[in-house]
Amino acid sequence: MALSVQPSSSPLLTSEADEKYANVKWEELGFALIPTDYMYVAKCKQGESFSTGEIIPYGDISISPCSGILNYGQGLFEGLKAYRAKNGCITPFRPNQNALRMQTGADRLCMTSPSEEQFVEAVKQTVLANKKWVPPSGKGALYIRPLLIGTGAVLGVASAPEYTFLIYVSPVGNYHAASSGLNLKVDHTYRRAHTGGTGSVKSCSNYSPVVKSLLEAKSSGFSDILFLDAATGRNIEEISTCNIFIVKGNIVSTPPTSGTILPGITRKSISELGRDIGYQVQERDVSVDELLEAEEVFCTGTAMVVKAVETVTFHNKKKKYRTGKEALSTKLHLMLTNIQMGIVEDKKGWMVEIDGYVPGTKKEISKT
Amino acid sequence: MALSVQPSSSPLLTSEADEKYANVKWEELGFALIPTDYMYVAKCKQGESFSTGEIIPYGDISISPCSGILNYGQGLFEGLKAYRAKNGCITPFRPNQNALRMQTGADRLCMTSPSEEQFVEAVKQTVLANKKWVPPSGKGALYIRPLLIGTGAVLGVASAPEYTFLIYVSPVGNYHAASSGLNLKVDHTYRRAHTGGTGSVKSCSNYSPVVKSLLEAKSSGFSDILFLDAATGRNIEEISTCNIFIVKGNIVSTPPTSGTILPGITRKSISELGRDIGYQVQERDVSVDELLEAEEVFCTGTAMVVKAVETVTFHNKKKKYRTGKEALSTKLHLMLTNIQMGIVEDKKGWMVEIDGYVPGTKKEISKT
Ligand SMILES: Cc1ncc(COP(=O)(O)O)c(C=O)c1O
Ligand SMILES: Cc1ncc(COP(=O)(O)O)c(C=O)c1O
Repeated sequence: MALSVQPSSSPLLTSEADEKYANVKWEELGFALIPTDYMYVAKCKQGESFSTGEIIPYGDISISPCSGILNYGQGLFEGLKAYRAKNGCITPFRPNQNALRMQTGADRLCMTSPSEEQFVEAVKQTVLANKKWVPPSGKGALYIRPLLIGTGAVLGVASAPEYTFLIYVSPVGNYHAASSGLNLKVDHTYRRAHTGGTGSVKSCSNYSPVVKSLLEAKSSGFSDILFLDAATGRNIEEISTCNIFIVKGNIVSTPPTSGTILPGITRKSISELGRDIGYQVQERDVSVDELLEAEEVFCTGTAMVVKAVETVTFHNKKKKYRTGKEALSTKLHLMLTNIQMGIVEDKKGWMVEIDGYVPGTKKEISKT
Repeated sequence: MALSVQPSSSPLLTSEADEKYANVKWEELGFALIPTDYMYVAKCKQGESFSTGEIIPYGDISISPCSGILNYGQGLFEGLKAYRAKNGCITPFRPNQNALRMQTGADRLCMTSPSEEQFVEAVKQTVLANKKWVPPSGKGALYIRPLLIGTGAVLGVASAPEYTFLIYVSPVGNYHAASSGLNLKVDHTYRRAHTGGTGSVKSCSNYSPVVKSLLEAKSSGFSDILFLDAATGRNIEEISTCNIFIVKGNIVSTPPTSGTILPGITRKSISELGRDIGYQVQERDVSVDELLEAEEVFCTGTAMVVKAVETVTFHNKKKKYRTGKEALSTKLHLMLTNIQMGIVEDKKGWMVEIDGYVPGTKKEISKT
């Protein structure tokens, strides 16, 4: 597809698109790419700042073979969702949190990031331009994938001279849709991240290394892989694309964000909701031993929101956990999705309404 | 630049290009990209094999925003050099070694790699197509950069459904040209790789994470950064883009390729040459203490070949090493570059002659 550039406002102003849905089988949504109409692209030279980007037709981008992303993995991604609320409003969930995480990542990878405001504005514009791809309420969400990549040409190992901030979207259902709970395998061969590395930022470089263990786990019938810390191999860290919590009595524990795990936005939100209903939520090292003694285990992440862990397999030991109606994860999942889908009032200020939004007025930038 | 595809043989058959040089200031070559005329591109679907690629004009490539490389850092690169020998022949150095290393990397990142023969053939074709960009004998080399990247679109973390094998080239001088020796800083904050990670393959994901420490070291006046092992922080591993050796008496030691450092092809070649002249070359853990007690330290890599280390700074301690005429590194540098530039006979079978090479005949595939 050619890169025909359109003024940023044009696709946003069609009154017709407002009421229509794209031709998607909403009941059958999984977590795979369905290309939509538009994407957002902005560029920035090293040492300068991002100026306003543009909404252009979704399609392949043109990139130097010698770019930082293709040669040295200089790239970050983000992932968030926009929901069609019960009342019809389209609402992204906490986009400013993704903006801030991208800034931290950009600092670690020596790139320039868009400002929080630019990021949130770009998310809004991209979602609005692809409005008809937001699933009907309760049928899924529009997954939003911002990228920040080194697109300038650079031969020696260094930061690229130009960066591109790009956002594309895809309607999605659930990440691990079918299962009642995850069956995790504790990884003994590979490690995801080490202290002094990039585990705490959403660098693309953290993901290709986990594909092999993920494939191996899936081919043995597991849903996903649970990584241990690289330093000691004694503590649990996180799953390939989500954080982990264990529950025992009134105490909910999750590994700390001390450099090797991603500070998940769902993790943060769920911790807050857990505290709201009287649980003691602790961020601290969690050993495999404790994991095996927990009553309940669950995962959090944008893709799956909150998902119970049914079993964990450690060497040849398989431990089963509480799932279903009695599980805390079921309760927390409901609390959060009720906010996300506009079923209960959002007292947290997490949902950003964009329907009435007019580009440039900034009046609805999130305050969360 | 548009992707106008040309038959692979056409640029190789112009008799004129044979005798001409490109319009380059050969005396001023550094290690920065000088775009040349052609690049090589081949594609392969997941589960299939690479078929023959094509030599096309050098220029930007078209890629899905949702590709494995842009989102999940699914990419490998290689780096090797072709020299214009004294007798005028153009000779890449050990390309089959890079082919094998790419295969190991592809396995780690769950990609399909070109066969050794395809890789070497593609290198030859790319070099021949860009013949006039190979610097005059003694003025530098043609740096060859093969990439293997996940170009298929993939939304969830997984291997991409399509891979692209691409080679571009650039004439280069030396990586750390000016200095008489490197001034290295031992890194205490960042780590490059961990056991169970991807440190031993040339994954793009190993490089963006080191840019920050490299920049910090350079801004303090150092040439490069020396990484310690992530597990204990006691042993030396390697520099951002090269391997390290220490010398004491008749013993030359270098960290082992046990999973966290790149098995350098220069490292392997220099180890062999060192043994040839009577040194005992040991591959084993080398502690910082030993480093500080060494008589001589040097680095090896495609970009700089062999380079003496003048100083190492560990915390606030600066240790000076032997450099210059008396140094083993000077001798080894001369031994290797004499082979590479065709000044002495290549008894090792390391240099691959490609001048008389006719694409498709395979009669000059390297046997090393
Ligand atoms: C490694 C990893 N951990 C955790 C998460 C969860 O983060 P969030 O809740 O912000 O989606 C993600 C991303 O989704 C991830 O990639
Ligand atoms: C991390 C690292 N170590 C070592 C080397 C040296 O390897 P080679 O001698 O094959 O160029 C390189 C690449 O050049 C590298 O990137």
